Amino acid sequence: MINRLTVVGVGLIGGSLARALREAGAVGEVVGCSRDAAHLARAQALGVVDRYTTDVAEAVQGADVVLLAIPVGAMPAVLAAMAPVLAAETVLTDAGSTKVSVLHAVTAAFGSVPANFVAGHPIAGTERSGVEASFAGLYRDRRVILTPTDATAAAAVDTVRRMWGAAGAVVELMTPPHHDEVFAATSHLPHVLAFSLVDTLATLDEKAEVFKYAAGGFRDFTRIASSDPTMWRDICLHNNGAIVGVLDRFTADLQALRAAIARGDGDYLSNVFQRAKQARDRFCDRVERPAPTNPNESA
Amino acid sequence: MINRLTVVGVGLIGGSLARALREAGAVGEVVGCSRDAAHLARAQALGVVDRYTTDVAEAVQGADVVLLAIPVGAMPAVLAAMAPVLAAETVLTDAGSTKVSVLHAVTAAFGSVPANFVAGHPIAGTERSGVEASFAGLYRDRRVILTPTDATAAAAVDTVRRMWGAAGAVVELMTPPHHDEVFAATSHLPHVLAFSLVDTLATLDEKAEVFKYAAGGFRDFTRIASSDPTMWRDICLHNNGAIVGVLDRFTADLQALRAAIARGDGDYLSNVFQRAKQARDRFCDRVERPAPTNPNESA
Repeated sequence: MINRLTVVGVGLIGGSLARALREAGAVGEVVGCSRDAAHLARAQALGVVDRYTTDVAEAVQGADVVLLAIPVGAMPAVLAAMAPVLAAETVLTDAGSTKVSVLHAVTAAFGSVPANFVAGHPIAGTERSGVEASFAGLYRDRRVILTPTDATAAAAVDTVRRMWGAAGAVVELMTPPHHDEVFAATSHLPHVLAFSLVDTLATLDEKAEVFKYAAGGFRDFTRIASSDPTMWRDICLHNNGAIVGVLDRFTADLQALRAAIARGDGDYLSNVFQRAKQARDRFCDRVERPAPTNPNESA
Repeated sequence: MINRLTVVGVGLIGGSLARALREAGAVGEVVGCSRDAAHLARAQALGVVDRYTTDVAEAVQGADVVLLAIPVGAMPAVLAAMAPVLAAETVLTDAGSTKVSVLHAVTAAFGSVPANFVAGHPIAGTERSGVEASFAGLYRDRRVILTPTDATAAAAVDTVRRMWGAAGAVVELMTPPHHDEVFAATSHLPHVLAFSLVDTLATLDEKAEVFKYAAGGFRDFTRIASSDPTMWRDICLHNNGAIVGVLDRFTADLQALRAAIARGDGDYLSNVFQRAKQARDRFCDRVERPAPTNPNESA
């Protein structure tokens, strides 16, 4: 039970955690904080937060747990505002998509990584954003990665683990660099490819009306290109080393495939496509579950 | 009303058309044909075809309409077997994903493009294949592109148009080269990227367990990498010019984006991601409909 939870950034991620913990009876009071008072008022009207303030220092007062659920690019300023006033006993965690850069930002703000800071990343989300898109079931059976360091207090890790567990998530530990490499591959690179493809096709579209003839496969493939551009700009800026690394590897493989297409090498194409289908069927369908439905969605 | 329809290749595409026309009462007898008698027996057991034969020449006898619903690489051999015996009054059409190469194959088999040949492409499908995956609603509100030439009889176009219309599809006409360019961009390139990405990640996976942490976005993005490898090999071989053209354009844009990530150019990233999100939201959601559900699916 968390007596008071402060959620900085009450959007899909922060809002859904607040809803889930309320539903589970695992939280007393939820305090919302962001730069946008109108947005916070909507969060309160939706019952996601009990009260709110746009002042970070005020928001974290008396909190047992503070969750930073903001784009990773916004973390340094918020951490700087919070560091002078955050009580040593308050557990601080985040939901940022990159972990090495967040630890750098925490170190810059606090001088070192506080024992009660637990870096985290819930592996859940949709292409929608904002508190209106939040729902209690978002984390049900989803993974949350925590990346504690040697300096992290075991009790703080336990508090954050139980918080996500109460929201229905499965918690795993990983080192920060390993986290950033894994998600550069499975999340950041696909988003970069989807954004880039849609942008390329949009310039072609004037002539050829390509989108008019897009079928279901294209819509699935490009769904992540409807994600929040600011969040993804920040992720690319804050995990650029790992992203460029896996992007270069992908590009080299793609160029080899292009050469095979150009020379009409059916065996090469068959090998790649069969390996890919097998890998996708084996690794992805193994973990495939029905997507959680959002009861707040109108359509 | 088609008195006798011969479907060569009774998989997802051919089987779904047969089911749809039966449901609409728009077909008398459906004759199935493929190389695999066991597969055809299943199609008959499922009620998709009334009878079947593995002999192409026998299959097309007395047919009002013959639909070729086979990978484009299999067309030349089937067309060669059919050409000597196909009645001049039989309307021949196909469901191949490339159109210029199919017209070449028809010309090679018949000496010229018969007046009663109407090249076609239903823009529908799932990553599943086989007659077990077929369902009557597959074409409901989906587009079917027909690419007649100057030699094509208007009456034949009309027959094929009414056939797809009876299955619930919206029929449009396009030139064959324009078709191949549009679908290189919206369908063939995305499939190449999805197959290539999954193959690249599969080689990384041994070390990093990347697939274990794949979330919903990744599963959507890579769904088309579970498509039939043979069909996609054939498409790449038969539309290689257009695919390489749009792939090179994509690669150039992707390399510019990579450079922006490497140099930390947030403005560049914001511009690309915002343009892409706008384009995807505007063009795709405009045509977004709930995917047709397959009542035959167990899960």
